[in-house]
Amino acid sequence: MNVIIDICVVPIGVGVSVSAHVAACQEVIREAGLEHRMHAYGTNVEGPWDDVMAAVKRCHEVVHEMGAPRITTTMKISTRTDRVQHMDEKVASVTDRFDGKP
Amino acid sequence: MNVIIDICVVPIGVGVSVSAHVAACQEVIREAGLEHRMHAYGTNVEGPWDDVMAAVKRCHEVVHEMGAPRITTTMKISTRTDRVQHMDEKVASVTDRFDGKP
Amino acid sequence: MNVIIDICVVPIGVGVSVSAHVAACQEVIREAGLEHRMHAYGTNVEGPWDDVMAAVKRCHEVVHEMGAPRITTTMKISTRTDRVQHMDEKVASVTDRFDGKP
Amino acid sequence: MNVIIDICVVPIGVGVSVSAHVAACQEVIREAGLEHRMHAYGTNVEGPWDDVMAAVKRCHEVVHEMGAPRITTTMKISTRTDRVQHMDEKVASVTDRFDGKP
Repeated sequence: MNVIIDICVVPIGVGVSVSAHVAACQEVIREAGLEHRMHAYGTNVEGPWDDVMAAVKRCHEVVHEMGAPRITTTMKISTRTDRVQHMDEKVASVTDRFDGKP
Repeated sequence: MNVIIDICVVPIGVGVSVSAHVAACQEVIREAGLEHRMHAYGTNVEGPWDDVMAAVKRCHEVVHEMGAPRITTTMKISTRTDRVQHMDEKVASVTDRFDGKP
Repeated sequence: MNVIIDICVVPIGVGVSVSAHVAACQEVIREAGLEHRMHAYGTNVEGPWDDVMAAVKRCHEVVHEMGAPRITTTMKISTRTDRVQHMDEKVASVTDRFDGKP
Repeated sequence: MNVIIDICVVPIGVGVSVSAHVAACQEVIREAGLEHRMHAYGTNVEGPWDDVMAAVKRCHEVVHEMGAPRITTTMKISTRTDRVQHMDEKVASVTDRFDGKP
């Protein structure tokens, strides 16, 4: 079962800046060899369910190891059985509708 | 690593009523032996990380088996290393602040 | 347009305990006269769109006034035009399916 | 109060393909003159609180007008009082940490 997730990991109790922790999660996902793309409020990740969820768990472990006593993560999970759809195609299925527009 | 999640599984392409699919997920979580409580917009589930995430995967599998071609799930994940906290304690930590109020 | 939301307000940069801020949000929602119910990972709120969203804005204002430099809120928003549905009915539509079960 | 949100509007009861509805929401946000960027699982939107939330409400109205009897939206809302931060800066604060990496 393939999955596309959107994940936003928020460490609590480490002060106002959380970019070091977010960067560490990016590293975890990159090392896992998963297709991913960061945006201003999270990261899209694509791959087999177990691999993606193992990376999510590893993110929590790494952020705790960096000193965060508490983490709250928000995640969306998309699966479909009717066809295979990749991240780029999801964006294209919408933007294609604007073709020809100024 | 213990985890408290809040999960809301939304089947797409099965019509307006999704209560049968939500009930099937409740059954999956109950069978997994995980502490859980449903509310009007999701379900709180508590337990060891791997057990909880295995139940989440099983929910997607079961809802697809019921005929949903597409699922989008929204999930929050809470972990902490400073102390063990259960679902009831999270609610109590807030409501205790209202003690003595009318 | 009536709405049911689930909201979880997370102050960042105020340390590990956030229960005082969550309690302040409960107070905002209560003062707004909105139907609500807290669970272990958020609060369900029901009412007219503008009233509910005004309360959400007030929550951010109050939590900032309490000293939080940064807030990240996770929210689900449900609207429907086919019929009016209240929070209790959403839960009942699922639990009724378990009637007669041990 | 400025806000950065991430929003994912999901129409229920309109079949498997939801790209027309998502495109209509893009149009609403574009017409509102709000800075925005779509990704594979939602759209980042930035602007004054009231303008952004008016666009969110308009999205629900438009998607219902297109025939969706039911909508569930997932949204994250970020506000901060310590400094002004734009969407691009949020991404840069993380990617800058990888500078010099292969």
